Amino acid sequence: MDTVEHDSPATTQDHAAPDHQHGYIHRKDDYLKRLRRIEGQARGLQRMVEDEKYCIDILTQVSAMTKALQSVALGLLEEHMSHCLVEAAAAGGREAEDKVREASDAIARLVRS
Amino acid sequence: MDTVEHDSPATTQDHAAPDHQHGYIHRKDDYLKRLRRIEGQARGLQRMVEDEKYCIDILTQVSAMTKALQSVALGLLEEHMSHCLVEAAAAGGREAEDKVREASDAIARLVRS
Amino acid sequence: MDTVEHDSPATTQDHAAPDHQHGYIHRKDDYLKRLRRIEGQARGLQRMVEDEKYCIDILTQVSAMTKALQSVALGLLEEHMSHCLVEAAAAGGREAEDKVREASDAIARLVRS
Amino acid sequence: MDTVEHDSPATTQDHAAPDHQHGYIHRKDDYLKRLRRIEGQARGLQRMVEDEKYCIDILTQVSAMTKALQSVALGLLEEHMSHCLVEAAAAGGREAEDKVREASDAIARLVRS
Repeated sequence: MDTVEHDSPATTQDHAAPDHQHGYIHRKDDYLKRLRRIEGQARGLQRMVEDEKYCIDILTQVSAMTKALQSVALGLLEEHMSHCLVEAAAAGGREAEDKVREASDAIARLVRS
Repeated sequence: MDTVEHDSPATTQDHAAPDHQHGYIHRKDDYLKRLRRIEGQARGLQRMVEDEKYCIDILTQVSAMTKALQSVALGLLEEHMSHCLVEAAAAGGREAEDKVREASDAIARLVRS
Repeated sequence: MDTVEHDSPATTQDHAAPDHQHGYIHRKDDYLKRLRRIEGQARGLQRMVEDEKYCIDILTQVSAMTKALQSVALGLLEEHMSHCLVEAAAAGGREAEDKVREASDAIARLVRS
Repeated sequence: MDTVEHDSPATTQDHAAPDHQHGYIHRKDDYLKRLRRIEGQARGLQRMVEDEKYCIDILTQVSAMTKALQSVALGLLEEHMSHCLVEAAAAGGREAEDKVREASDAIARLVRS
């Protein structure tokens, strides 16, 4: 099963004000398209294993898929900074600090993954 | 479309002798299970974007998915070295050299992705 | 020779207002200490190669040194965001956009290195 | 102080037979040169912090230094596989298995660092 608990009430989604638009929303279709392609890559990898393809060829596809995922992450992060972080910074105070810390933690996870 | 050209005649699959078993084969079911879970994570990410979840929560899931993929890659690589590489080394000569170079290139792609 | 052109007039240092304090300055001594330790690790690696130590032991030290460098980078980035980026965001407009783009590019280089 | 315990009796150096030459030895001078350049980069970074250079410029140098380190690691690894691993594989048995496991662990540390 998916580890993605996408509709859990415990997500930090609620941090955002009700009328706040996340940075990536205006490019939602582009992200969905890229994620569908990534899902296709995951299926392609299953077929490769099923068909007992050569290990190195499978690794090449894993690297391509990892790069595609990283590129999605870097895009989301830039849009997060342009919108959520810049808005919080303009508001100032504790909210700005919290957002910087939260973004830093997310960046550390990306760098280390 | 998938970028995975899984049944192209140009794959390096043919490098392996006809009776050669790739290292990962005896754990094929385990790899298929992990890749199905990764596919599920890709679908979970699409739902998160669809539902306009908070950017940082999406990034957390992207990091988890990247780690899962890397773990698959490291497992495949270890089994490749235990089988294909060790067999080629035992045979010696040019074949061993080629396999080391090929594995090194795959490792470089993983480290840099 | 060092590739670090640290006193070139072409650095982007001048982007900062004359009275602007970079985020990391208040922890300058801590960063200097960590970088001196990293310099020591680079010398330790030279001794290991000189003494023809076992390859895998050298690789272990390279990984430790890479982690130490990444940790410095993540610290600098967080302080950059807390200060330079938040100030630019508070000022608003084009300056904020430029800073976000610049930080995103730096993050992409870290993630891919 | 250096974390590199380069002459500890506990290193795995002793794994190698007394007449065994590590793979990188025939390119020792090249590795020493690259590691000296990396040491110079670590000193350059200290000067940048000392001179309070712009954070993003420091990060650019950290990324360049990380890439240089990774490139050293990938080179050492390839030569390790060409020599130590191939020799162990040719000898066969438990020694080959141990060397593959040891190399896999080193690769995992590189990928995750």
